[in-house]
Amino acid sequence: MLQSLAGSSCVRLVEQHRSAWCFALLVLGYLLYLVFGAVVFSSHACLSEQQLEQFLMRVLEASNYGVSVLSNASGNWNWDFTSSLFFASTVLSTTGYGHTVPLSDGGKAFCIIYSVIGIPFTLLFLTAVVQRIIVYVTRRPVLYFHIRWGFSKQVVAIIHAMVLGFITVSFFFLIPAAIFSVLEDDWNFLESFYFCFISLSTIGLGDYVPGEGYNQKFRELYKIGITCYLLMGLIAMLVVLETFCELHELKKFRKLFYVKKDKEEDQVHIMEHDQLSFSSISDQAASMKDDQKANEPFVNSQSPTSNDSSLNN
Amino acid sequence: MLQSLAGSSCVRLVEQHRSAWCFALLVLGYLLYLVFGAVVFSSHACLSEQQLEQFLMRVLEASNYGVSVLSNASGNWNWDFTSSLFFASTVLSTTGYGHTVPLSDGGKAFCIIYSVIGIPFTLLFLTAVVQRIIVYVTRRPVLYFHIRWGFSKQVVAIIHAMVLGFITVSFFFLIPAAIFSVLEDDWNFLESFYFCFISLSTIGLGDYVPGEGYNQKFRELYKIGITCYLLMGLIAMLVVLETFCELHELKKFRKLFYVKKDKEEDQVHIMEHDQLSFSSISDQAASMKDDQKANEPFVNSQSPTSNDSSLNN
Repeated sequence: MLQSLAGSSCVRLVEQHRSAWCFALLVLGYLLYLVFGAVVFSSHACLSEQQLEQFLMRVLEASNYGVSVLSNASGNWNWDFTSSLFFASTVLSTTGYGHTVPLSDGGKAFCIIYSVIGIPFTLLFLTAVVQRIIVYVTRRPVLYFHIRWGFSKQVVAIIHAMVLGFITVSFFFLIPAAIFSVLEDDWNFLESFYFCFISLSTIGLGDYVPGEGYNQKFRELYKIGITCYLLMGLIAMLVVLETFCELHELKKFRKLFYVKKDKEEDQVHIMEHDQLSFSSISDQAASMKDDQKANEPFVNSQSPTSNDSSLNN
Repeated sequence: MLQSLAGSSCVRLVEQHRSAWCFALLVLGYLLYLVFGAVVFSSHACLSEQQLEQFLMRVLEASNYGVSVLSNASGNWNWDFTSSLFFASTVLSTTGYGHTVPLSDGGKAFCIIYSVIGIPFTLLFLTAVVQRIIVYVTRRPVLYFHIRWGFSKQVVAIIHAMVLGFITVSFFFLIPAAIFSVLEDDWNFLESFYFCFISLSTIGLGDYVPGEGYNQKFRELYKIGITCYLLMGLIAMLVVLETFCELHELKKFRKLFYVKKDKEEDQVHIMEHDQLSFSSISDQAASMKDDQKANEPFVNSQSPTSNDSSLNN
């Protein structure tokens, strides 16, 4: 028994390291994919909407003075590498401000292909990151205070979720909004907060996009900073969402709207795996499985014991 | 035993109906929430970006002829109820084209509050709908052909996912793209396909938004049709995504990047639940649990037996 335990902990160690290596490769691969997208996008002919407007307004002004600006128009000043990186990251996170868009057919086709691969890639990347963060940010603290204070886990989890929510709102909405209202010339605090919210919720209306002013200082650095902010903010939002989704009360609430496991499937599973004799074993497994089912909205696993889960409820 | 089975199937029947009622209420509540949003948005002062551009171009044209159009501009023709409904649905699905945006402070504040409640509401709504659809569209067909043909479930699942993907691409991308390229004056097929993709992936750049032409016939009906198309398309995308995520090969691939269950947590759980004596029971539970863990990216349940899951692998 001890020997098999020692052996299995060895296997576990290897498994853990394999997961860490794979994760490191995933992060590296994702960053390279972003850079690749930025390189290709920056080589395509694209146009910023704001540029277009500003251009139109200049044409209007110029035409008032009877001057032709047609040959003086330079339309590519903000489709450089950092702007392309920013564009790639907003497309892959499905934010899509639309302040810059591919105009050529090739650009559009590349944008579709890049996203078809990139969006599932982003989901995998975010999932793996959030799954790691949540251990340190949610599970361990909740467990620690649960043991330390002796409160029930549910109460600790609710207080923790509230505190985490408050911290996230402060660090990813209030403080950045204050910073943007200083850095961007004509944004007040509400407008800056509105930008943060519209961005991190991935709505991305694109009526406010930072770093688009003509006279922006350190423009490239600023764009990279915003890209990092958006990525980290998105991860923070997912961590908070997941923390709230794990709350027992919310699980119970969500369960109200989901269908129970399909009966026919269960019967087939029972036929296949001949599980009827394990009913006492399955009971335990099923009760925990049922809890889990509420956790995973889009997935209902096809394990053999779910027939018993309905007997338990 | 039989008695308890009969009793539990009764309980199950009641449960199923409760779930159906709750689901009906959820759908109704969601539609009402959309309508509520549309009513409030249509009462706020907002402006379409395309309108702005068209307006600017008209000003430009007019100024060439020395005519002032300032008093003739009517800026609210497309912020009616159906357009507001369209806007509300694109915000809640996080598509956010940005072709219409709230300009007033009140509009922005309402947009934030509406989304804070509405986006989780949308997630719940979509999850409940997709969970129901997937039983009829994926689980039962796969099971049927698995039993009928005798192929392994994995092979059937892969073929099924491919076919479902092909059908979805046809009905939600190719056919709508053909329709849009007819209905919209200056959209070719690639542009229409690009619009479908950018919309159903919820990127929502907003460079192409249908029903925005001045001379659009049956504009309101068209806008409602597009709203329905976007909602149904989003559900179809989620069904396909979920169908692919359930494939055994993809589960195994995703598992590579996820961490195993945290050791400390397990120990505490073991202390709490005194599960060590149930190792043989837990083994079975854990192996199925592990499979499930791969299914649910953002969730790691806190059940007591997961320590054993690593022993199994």
